[in-house]
Amino acid sequence: MAETNKGRSEEEVARAFVNHYYHLFDNDRSSLSTLYNPTSLLTFEGQKIYGVEDISNKLKQLPFDQCRHLISTVDSQPSSMAGGCGGILVFVSGSIQLHGEDRPLRFSQTFHLVPLLQGSFFVQNEMFRLNYG
Amino acid sequence: MAETNKGRSEEEVARAFVNHYYHLFDNDRSSLSTLYNPTSLLTFEGQKIYGVEDISNKLKQLPFDQCRHLISTVDSQPSSMAGGCGGILVFVSGSIQLHGEDRPLRFSQTFHLVPLLQGSFFVQNEMFRLNYG
Repeated sequence: MAETNKGRSEEEVARAFVNHYYHLFDNDRSSLSTLYNPTSLLTFEGQKIYGVEDISNKLKQLPFDQCRHLISTVDSQPSSMAGGCGGILVFVSGSIQLHGEDRPLRFSQTFHLVPLLQGSFFVQNEMFRLNYG
Repeated sequence: MAETNKGRSEEEVARAFVNHYYHLFDNDRSSLSTLYNPTSLLTFEGQKIYGVEDISNKLKQLPFDQCRHLISTVDSQPSSMAGGCGGILVFVSGSIQLHGEDRPLRFSQTFHLVPLLQGSFFVQNEMFRLNYG
């Protein structure tokens, strides 16, 4: 298992990130902006959004105020094996319960986390899709 | 839109890769081995598999002989913005129709394609999940 800075495995980093991300999403969505940087790229239901401000605005303006994510699976891998940036790919499946809706919506989401010098990570890449059908 | 070697956009590379991958999967699964290299990593329904030979064996030995993938969405992004490897993240959703089964199975799959010197790409990372629900 690949070790990241601070000696945490990529699975530990991925699990901690997933818990943190969805906790912020469900409880304090404006704080998600702290996870991105100016090069970050989000594709949300096919729409590409660049940079901290536009990504943060997109997430805040989604057409539901209250929601709760239920995570089914979390997979993770180092994004490079040969002297790369030490990034981590995180692949999540689960469902979202929207306030006032009977049935949760299934979703899948991919993140590419890239390390900062201080031992933390930011979201370089993020792709989100609802799974209909 | 980021340009890759040979001047193709990452969306063009992603679309061509997706068509090629699922065509091989459904028609000549043993040829999928040509898409991997010794550092490749596949996580299939939570099981991690490393390198060309083990990945190729896993895909050949899946418990169904004939299947047909139907692709619903393909999203793609450059995996690095700051002097990185020129990799491409590809995020796919769709369904698999297994021979003899009534209902197709929904799936999501993430690939990280990394360029080779000749202008082609190999699969560095791959993560696959069925979407139950």
